[in-house]
Amino acid sequence: MHLLQYRELVRRALDEDLAQGDKTTDSIFSDEQGKAEIISRENGIIAGLPVAAEVFSQVMDARFIAHFTDGDAIGAGDCVATVEGRVASILKGERVALNFMQRLSGIATQTASAVRLVAGTRARIVDTRKTTPGLRILEKYAVRAGGGENHRFNLGDMVMIKDNHIKGAGSITQAVKKVRKNTGFTVKIEVEAAGLQDVAEALACEVDIIMLDNMTVAEMAQAVSKVRGRALTEASGGITESQLQDVAQTGVDLISLGYLTHSYRSFDLSLKLL
Amino acid sequence: MHLLQYRELVRRALDEDLAQGDKTTDSIFSDEQGKAEIISRENGIIAGLPVAAEVFSQVMDARFIAHFTDGDAIGAGDCVATVEGRVASILKGERVALNFMQRLSGIATQTASAVRLVAGTRARIVDTRKTTPGLRILEKYAVRAGGGENHRFNLGDMVMIKDNHIKGAGSITQAVKKVRKNTGFTVKIEVEAAGLQDVAEALACEVDIIMLDNMTVAEMAQAVSKVRGRALTEASGGITESQLQDVAQTGVDLISLGYLTHSYRSFDLSLKLL
Amino acid sequence: MHLLQYRELVRRALDEDLAQGDKTTDSIFSDEQGKAEIISRENGIIAGLPVAAEVFSQVMDARFIAHFTDGDAIGAGDCVATVEGRVASILKGERVALNFMQRLSGIATQTASAVRLVAGTRARIVDTRKTTPGLRILEKYAVRAGGGENHRFNLGDMVMIKDNHIKGAGSITQAVKKVRKNTGFTVKIEVEAAGLQDVAEALACEVDIIMLDNMTVAEMAQAVSKVRGRALTEASGGITESQLQDVAQTGVDLISLGYLTHSYRSFDLSLKLL
Amino acid sequence: MHLLQYRELVRRALDEDLAQGDKTTDSIFSDEQGKAEIISRENGIIAGLPVAAEVFSQVMDARFIAHFTDGDAIGAGDCVATVEGRVASILKGERVALNFMQRLSGIATQTASAVRLVAGTRARIVDTRKTTPGLRILEKYAVRAGGGENHRFNLGDMVMIKDNHIKGAGSITQAVKKVRKNTGFTVKIEVEAAGLQDVAEALACEVDIIMLDNMTVAEMAQAVSKVRGRALTEASGGITESQLQDVAQTGVDLISLGYLTHSYRSFDLSLKLL
Amino acid sequence: MHLLQYRELVRRALDEDLAQGDKTTDSIFSDEQGKAEIISRENGIIAGLPVAAEVFSQVMDARFIAHFTDGDAIGAGDCVATVEGRVASILKGERVALNFMQRLSGIATQTASAVRLVAGTRARIVDTRKTTPGLRILEKYAVRAGGGENHRFNLGDMVMIKDNHIKGAGSITQAVKKVRKNTGFTVKIEVEAAGLQDVAEALACEVDIIMLDNMTVAEMAQAVSKVRGRALTEASGGITESQLQDVAQTGVDLISLGYLTHSYRSFDLSLKLL
Amino acid sequence: MHLLQYRELVRRALDEDLAQGDKTTDSIFSDEQGKAEIISRENGIIAGLPVAAEVFSQVMDARFIAHFTDGDAIGAGDCVATVEGRVASILKGERVALNFMQRLSGIATQTASAVRLVAGTRARIVDTRKTTPGLRILEKYAVRAGGGENHRFNLGDMVMIKDNHIKGAGSITQAVKKVRKNTGFTVKIEVEAAGLQDVAEALACEVDIIMLDNMTVAEMAQAVSKVRGRALTEASGGITESQLQDVAQTGVDLISLGYLTHSYRSFDLSLKLL
Repeated sequence: MHLLQYRELVRRALDEDLAQGDKTTDSIFSDEQGKAEIISRENGIIAGLPVAAEVFSQVMDARFIAHFTDGDAIGAGDCVATVEGRVASILKGERVALNFMQRLSGIATQTASAVRLVAGTRARIVDTRKTTPGLRILEKYAVRAGGGENHRFNLGDMVMIKDNHIKGAGSITQAVKKVRKNTGFTVKIEVEAAGLQDVAEALACEVDIIMLDNMTVAEMAQAVSKVRGRALTEASGGITESQLQDVAQTGVDLISLGYLTHSYRSFDLSLKLL
Repeated sequence: MHLLQYRELVRRALDEDLAQGDKTTDSIFSDEQGKAEIISRENGIIAGLPVAAEVFSQVMDARFIAHFTDGDAIGAGDCVATVEGRVASILKGERVALNFMQRLSGIATQTASAVRLVAGTRARIVDTRKTTPGLRILEKYAVRAGGGENHRFNLGDMVMIKDNHIKGAGSITQAVKKVRKNTGFTVKIEVEAAGLQDVAEALACEVDIIMLDNMTVAEMAQAVSKVRGRALTEASGGITESQLQDVAQTGVDLISLGYLTHSYRSFDLSLKLL
Repeated sequence: MHLLQYRELVRRALDEDLAQGDKTTDSIFSDEQGKAEIISRENGIIAGLPVAAEVFSQVMDARFIAHFTDGDAIGAGDCVATVEGRVASILKGERVALNFMQRLSGIATQTASAVRLVAGTRARIVDTRKTTPGLRILEKYAVRAGGGENHRFNLGDMVMIKDNHIKGAGSITQAVKKVRKNTGFTVKIEVEAAGLQDVAEALACEVDIIMLDNMTVAEMAQAVSKVRGRALTEASGGITESQLQDVAQTGVDLISLGYLTHSYRSFDLSLKLL
Repeated sequence: MHLLQYRELVRRALDEDLAQGDKTTDSIFSDEQGKAEIISRENGIIAGLPVAAEVFSQVMDARFIAHFTDGDAIGAGDCVATVEGRVASILKGERVALNFMQRLSGIATQTASAVRLVAGTRARIVDTRKTTPGLRILEKYAVRAGGGENHRFNLGDMVMIKDNHIKGAGSITQAVKKVRKNTGFTVKIEVEAAGLQDVAEALACEVDIIMLDNMTVAEMAQAVSKVRGRALTEASGGITESQLQDVAQTGVDLISLGYLTHSYRSFDLSLKLL
Repeated sequence: MHLLQYRELVRRALDEDLAQGDKTTDSIFSDEQGKAEIISRENGIIAGLPVAAEVFSQVMDARFIAHFTDGDAIGAGDCVATVEGRVASILKGERVALNFMQRLSGIATQTASAVRLVAGTRARIVDTRKTTPGLRILEKYAVRAGGGENHRFNLGDMVMIKDNHIKGAGSITQAVKKVRKNTGFTVKIEVEAAGLQDVAEALACEVDIIMLDNMTVAEMAQAVSKVRGRALTEASGGITESQLQDVAQTGVDLISLGYLTHSYRSFDLSLKLL
Repeated sequence: MHLLQYRELVRRALDEDLAQGDKTTDSIFSDEQGKAEIISRENGIIAGLPVAAEVFSQVMDARFIAHFTDGDAIGAGDCVATVEGRVASILKGERVALNFMQRLSGIATQTASAVRLVAGTRARIVDTRKTTPGLRILEKYAVRAGGGENHRFNLGDMVMIKDNHIKGAGSITQAVKKVRKNTGFTVKIEVEAAGLQDVAEALACEVDIIMLDNMTVAEMAQAVSKVRGRALTEASGGITESQLQDVAQTGVDLISLGYLTHSYRSFDLSLKLL
């Protein structure tokens, strides 16, 4: 992830918190120098360190030194990073930096947990477009930090033919045909299959990925054996952590999980001024 | 909440999803007209309806008609809103509209649950600055929709003297003095008290609000009885839903909950094209 | 005031003046180095030095060295700051830097004059929202530099119940009740009182501040004695410099002056290339 | 002046005042309809009506109907405009609309006063670049509304050779030569003349405008008679209202006045809800 | 292409031309109504009609009525569109609207010419990333209007392994392996092949597309026969119009042409006020 | 040209190409250092070097060292610039930097060719407003680099009375009169003359520049001899390179060429990683 991709997000976040200054800190501190540690209070995967570094860089007069790399496993009590410089700057950037890191680490940790559950199968954990409006670039980055993979970024970088598109076009075959005619050769095509018949039709259309949408585990297994590697298969549809292992056992290639980015728990980090 | 406050957020969210168009939808649909319903799949409090309306307004050619008002209780199966117009526009706005509504309704529902738990006590549920970077205005709005109240919006609209400020100033008394000297008469002053002695000192300084930080329920009760209404008392510090009732029984005025905005679960809504 | 709060204002001001370059300077100068002094031509209070520094920082290749600190008293002939670097850069930034400094110093000087006039009384001089559109953050900063205090920043960070609100709600009591119900506990409440009866009603509502609006000096004195410190009192309503001492003698806590920011005279500064 | 030129300025001004909503108004009003009048409290020239109309247009739900046109003379007591619609919207836009109109009308009125003083002479009143950072487009428009003319908009749309440029180039002749070589044929050239010798040299260079900088009235008269219409002459340099008539009698073509835009007094307007 | 994708581009283009108003038009016209025709002066393919419509929509008070649809063939003398409304608005929008339409129609026409030349072969004409900075979305749209297809939009929506990547990774095989490990399953992979050996290696890696870079026509033919449909083949490398037919005869699937977007000739259109 | 004038253009161009990262490069390279040369493949005039430098500065971790200055003649094979630093950064900035440089050098080269053709005559080559929307500042800069001059930048910095304005005003004389009344003294006035009678009328109005629009070479010569230096004469109207010498021989002062900026050919440059 490149600074150009999140610098503006950081600027807006700081503007949100600091547009009228920090009345408390500015009343009490002037140029005092200090040092703070960002401590983990639980076990998990850290993500968002460069974003936090950018926060303090924009606040100025404080330097953020990461002791881990995004994607690293950290434990409760670990000192994740140090911030050195003006105490006032450390306090001004604290909340914004933590707000970014706690969310991104929460996503990474949750993703890593899902990845662990499917270890030993061919299933890869992937995200969805169910991300926080405006923060998709960061949330999808956090999924990668947690060991997951990214599904399409937006409506323009892949074709995903869903039930409404199929209805609109008349059939899967018609929909694929229209898409092939109207989009470039650069995009992969995925079709949402509601049942085995749809899987067969999608296969016949030689699509790249077949989404097994809201199928039972048994249906998924049948679909996978029908596909026999001629397309990627993606299990999808409100799959929860407790179902992950059963789904993975069906042999699907991909399991997409909306909850990775829409219902994550903030990771517990705190900043301690030394 | 005024459109001027979220129009730009909606624009950015649409840009994120639609910057390169919607390859699938544009290949299949042209001017077909249609109608869709947004259906709730669980019980809770709806929030974000005007934001979703703005999404479709910016996508154009589709009209969003809300059947509820933000803050209303809705049940599984309820049709929350209807969207009418070009099918292509409905499909293009769907994900962004849901991403906003599901998050805001998740916050509202979680807040309402907390509010219910403290019903019958004097405690009011309030939020924190632990919001998603860039979306604070919406998330704090959702807290109000759920029956909670908003704590300060940012670092500039209230004074909150925390442990680091107290250390920096030398004492609570010194910190309050400095703040009174340097900030306007328009802001209220809150002091974080680590124990009963701090409460006494803060009271002597005639601050507006005293935060009882990470105290036990017993300590809180003592603090409340010591304060006797001369300041508002705020229970704070990682309080979970299971502790809410005990905390509320202590007689505190405010209970601030970071989890309302940092660890909410997305509310289950789906859009069905008729 | 943090750089994040005015960097964009400086960028826009430079864009306004330099969007098509500086045809004169670029025709004549290339890399010549030089030094300039910013000289005061009158006595007053300087403000805007960090803003001017940012102007030259954005123009690049010239360094602004302040010889005073915002809020300092300066005299005619004083060298307020030095600018060193490329002559072309000094000339390009000159007008924008002076436009900022002259306005902010004008406000600071005018504020200091008002503050001096009420010295020895309990009255503090405060500003209003009658600021130049888009420059409020700077103008309110200049008021502080001049020894004044800031009234509320905008419509969202305090409650001010004016005549129209009172009419709309039915009475002061009704208005305060509605406000208490609908706004957070973080905001202070001020009520505009048109006469002594209003003062009494506002007092009964336990509001934080009572505005004595367009009252005679005698009425104000009565109001102050009625309030007896149970709320702050604010004299308001087109008060001019010549009335300031009389108003201050009434014992009011605050005197708000629109003219501080809406009718200031530019402070006389000039840049001399050595 | 085209809406495209000030729409963004209005948006930023509203954002400044309404970013966190209007806590008072939103607590008291919902959909009540009403009507307000904007009343002049003094005699002068009105300016800024379309800007105020845009303010209410962006706030929405209120319509601004102007009863005069920018540049019209208005008297104390005149109803300048009516605003109809939601009371809440009228109150939210009130301050921003007045802040714009009062400043622009202040400039227009001050300009008209200067124009009146030089009536009967050939002198035209013109502005300078001493405008409020970011608002130049509006302030120069207000000068025109008051009957003045605009000097160059910025550093790129005319050449103005000042003392530092002359020093840098070696002489007026050298400076003009360099400028002619490096800038397009589209720009006019003005030279700042410190004395009669400079006037002669500038004339010899066939420049378009000669600025008579900080000259005495007698010197100006001599300069004008020397120039004999072969270039425009501009009187400049801290000219005050009391000197205007004498300066105009010298026969200069232009009198540029920095105070038109840097030290204007806000024009007294108020909004009355009916 | 959605309005959201070019509204901001239109806004900036108008700002560029109208930021200081239209001095000529505003001096001469006020509210006169009129009608203008946009006439083609040559044969070709029209593109950019909705962009021109948006130009007049933002200028306001003029309505653009297209008589063709983007992608239509038009002939010299055809009336492409009508603009009705305020004469001043028509004149203000004229240049910006034509600047957009003439460029986009130039691209579409040039693309159509290339498409015609390869008609009857399996070759499809595609564009590159050699687009005008900031206008890629429009220029790639114009390529589609001309019957071409779009290659990848930017560095993030497909993988293109070029010579430098191959050198960096050690071999094509290594490069593909690294890419497969690090990027999502959603992206297609293209490899640049400098010769037949590279083609063989890329084929073995099962990439989606093989670029035949700067090969002779004979080499391309060999490469195509080697690939036998197991990947798409793309002819690339400074191919000119005169070489197109020979290249297409080799049986390649795609021919990418940088000149479509980097060296197009503006299409001749003019606006005539009736 | 000042960095402030193109920094934002560079930012948007990078955002266009890198908003979702560089999937290929980021999969293969990490911190490897390298060096690249930008090589010219043809003879011409280089332009855009500082813009390319800014591209790599924003991408970070790579330094662009120019070996020529904009406006220099370069030959095929010349190393125009070196880029040193992270290989990944060099590859990420490559296309955007080249896209800028190739266009600007194309314009400069084409301009220089026109300038050469009219050498020895009094004719100067000037551009028009037929520039790429949003890039005018750069394209007009490139014209200067090629030895041309800039005509007016936009609709606000000069007056150009065209046929439609003349019709609207009634006559050239009426149009000039209205313009003189309504615009400042800072702008020059040009009139479009359709024939010799128009030239005479424009001359009588003492305008600064007379455009000889779509006249034959013979008519232009007559017009020039009629004007006898009392105004600048500008040949205009679809003049091609092959007509340039004949037009210049007529003695016109200016020849404006739309094709300089609307139909230029991209200059052939390539980046080679060493």
